[in-house]
Amino acid sequence: MKRVYLDHIAATPLHPEALEAMLPFLRDRFGNPQSLHSDGQGVLEAVEEARQKVAGLIHAAESEIYFTSSGSESNNFAIKGLALANRSRGGHLVLSAVEHLSVLNSAKSLEKLGFTSTLVPVDRTGMVQPEDVDKAIAKETTLVSVMMANSEVGTIEPIDEIAKICKTRNVLFHTDAVAAAGNIPIDVRALAVDALSLAGDQFYGPKGSAALYLKKGVRIIPFIEGGIQEGGRRGGTENVAGIVGLGKAAEIAQAKMAERSEKAKVLRDLLIDRLPGKVDRVVLTGHRDRRLPHHASFCIEFIEGEAMLLSLDMKGIAVSSGSACTSKALKASHVLLAMGLDHALAQGSLVFSLIDGNTAEDIGYLLDVFPPIIDRLRTMSPLYTKYLEEKGK
Amino acid sequence: MKRVYLDHIAATPLHPEALEAMLPFLRDRFGNPQSLHSDGQGVLEAVEEARQKVAGLIHAAESEIYFTSSGSESNNFAIKGLALANRSRGGHLVLSAVEHLSVLNSAKSLEKLGFTSTLVPVDRTGMVQPEDVDKAIAKETTLVSVMMANSEVGTIEPIDEIAKICKTRNVLFHTDAVAAAGNIPIDVRALAVDALSLAGDQFYGPKGSAALYLKKGVRIIPFIEGGIQEGGRRGGTENVAGIVGLGKAAEIAQAKMAERSEKAKVLRDLLIDRLPGKVDRVVLTGHRDRRLPHHASFCIEFIEGEAMLLSLDMKGIAVSSGSACTSKALKASHVLLAMGLDHALAQGSLVFSLIDGNTAEDIGYLLDVFPPIIDRLRTMSPLYTKYLEEKGK
Repeated sequence: MKRVYLDHIAATPLHPEALEAMLPFLRDRFGNPQSLHSDGQGVLEAVEEARQKVAGLIHAAESEIYFTSSGSESNNFAIKGLALANRSRGGHLVLSAVEHLSVLNSAKSLEKLGFTSTLVPVDRTGMVQPEDVDKAIAKETTLVSVMMANSEVGTIEPIDEIAKICKTRNVLFHTDAVAAAGNIPIDVRALAVDALSLAGDQFYGPKGSAALYLKKGVRIIPFIEGGIQEGGRRGGTENVAGIVGLGKAAEIAQAKMAERSEKAKVLRDLLIDRLPGKVDRVVLTGHRDRRLPHHASFCIEFIEGEAMLLSLDMKGIAVSSGSACTSKALKASHVLLAMGLDHALAQGSLVFSLIDGNTAEDIGYLLDVFPPIIDRLRTMSPLYTKYLEEKGK
Repeated sequence: MKRVYLDHIAATPLHPEALEAMLPFLRDRFGNPQSLHSDGQGVLEAVEEARQKVAGLIHAAESEIYFTSSGSESNNFAIKGLALANRSRGGHLVLSAVEHLSVLNSAKSLEKLGFTSTLVPVDRTGMVQPEDVDKAIAKETTLVSVMMANSEVGTIEPIDEIAKICKTRNVLFHTDAVAAAGNIPIDVRALAVDALSLAGDQFYGPKGSAALYLKKGVRIIPFIEGGIQEGGRRGGTENVAGIVGLGKAAEIAQAKMAERSEKAKVLRDLLIDRLPGKVDRVVLTGHRDRRLPHHASFCIEFIEGEAMLLSLDMKGIAVSSGSACTSKALKASHVLLAMGLDHALAQGSLVFSLIDGNTAEDIGYLLDVFPPIIDRLRTMSPLYTKYLEEKGK
């Protein structure tokens, strides 16, 4: 059967050149980069070269990049490490209501240590209003964290304005750029961010390899404590192959971003424009234009996302009904609820996210097989029956 | 030039079968194991199969294994997570003085939150006395952590007795088994341990892939907070290929342990028996018999470990002068100091640790090239000159 993978936000395939770059470190170049002998030092050079490439992707200095094992680790490191290291500024955090659970739960843990936090709302498109961030900042605010782009609804947040506000108000600013980095241009020199999380599996790098950008001079407490790795700021033997793959993927992403983005946008817009004509009662979630180039997300009324997902899977199409980090929790997404969608509608969430190699034929196939699935599922929905009855009256 | 790798404790090569098992997950099986579609579910099966294999290595239940990114992460997770989740028992920790920095530094961080800790001493062989642990346990002790084997001096600690004491005294017991797991038999059913850390790069698995065993029913606070991965106890997209490689390495380690161990012991004993006859003023560190099968460590008087390491490297031999996690700190090892070695002698530390494939010829080569290196370095040592003068008197 034809397989069409439309689940970029859950995982991208590893770029073959990234794998090629990794293989020597999974074979004979197995030394520990902290070893002083040549088996170690040669490997260390490769780690530092990867650091340079990751730095290049976001226009950071090499020394500002810390390798981690996931976007979630980067977020834990940033939120806990920055809050604890800069507590003397005050124990208050400002976060958007649509942050990833790794950010929200880190803040909750800090609350157990006496911190407080304010959640800034979003509008119907999932957008944070910069003036709301400004209002939420208090005298005792240590840290603001607002994501660069939301993986569930694709919305790109006005990070540049929020960063400027944080700078003016003299509070630290972290952005979770896991969904954004490698997919849209980021320049930390222009942005006034103090810390930024990114992850390789969102731009054709390996799973288990991610990074935290930390602006030079910003104080942080190590999260994984241990040895001298990563300048003493992140202990644990380096995942060398993963780091090298992340570096290669960053290099490729930088070179190919415009081209990938243009191609994805065409397919994304095709889907956004055509789906509502094919399926009744479908709502685009997130912002129509300020959204990730590879991202189209909808709520389809009267049906649960999971049922649609499984039906599409049987037709060979892989999609998400939200974040992979909560896929089995079967709760309505906190992101959609924060956007003001009602609980029932939020249950009908589907995310179509494009990867390199998807074609117009893939979208055509989806648009062919999806409407009959919806029809079939809706005949089983008591809510839809009720809706039809009321409509008929 | 001949290359002889004798630095198991820094990193082992990845077993070719482990790499073979990983490759499909670095190629077409790139789905996110949390995705509900078949691209994800097939990958999830592989993750769970790996969990079974890692569990098998230490005779745990599958549900007691949590994947992490390094031994250091496992140690941070265990120490911080157990201490915080069980604080109501009291805020006191008992650790041995020779624990890894990821354990010691985690305890120091907890001290900032009001915890206290007691360091239990070791004897001249690096051995913890179980009765010292018993004495250190107080009414308010929450957690004891003593490693299974020390990577710097090879000593295997009397974990079974310590575990029994902890059980009797009703305190939680964690053991850092990073240097031991996969190299010596471990049976958590027989040992009364509540938590145990292990890492793949110590038994021919991939770097960046490790695990924490947590006994069923023991309460812990997640360390990397985020989504639903690892039963909600460890967020972050799984490093699938790394996990699969760890599983395969665990399976191989279980099957080959006795054979590997026997072979390594022969070479280890050859080195321990012969080196003192070849080099003047050399002291075996750690216990003569209760030590890791692949591990021979020494202090060589009047010379710095780093100088010997670099000279050996020029002859093609890779060794450590201590833990890779502190290799560049150039401080005397806290392990050797805790064993009562004086500061000068501790500087002369060298660790020879064997990997699969090392031969008696390798040891012969080492024993040939090492004495002239020592002679040359000692002619440059003012301390040695002084020693010779005093000896001559």
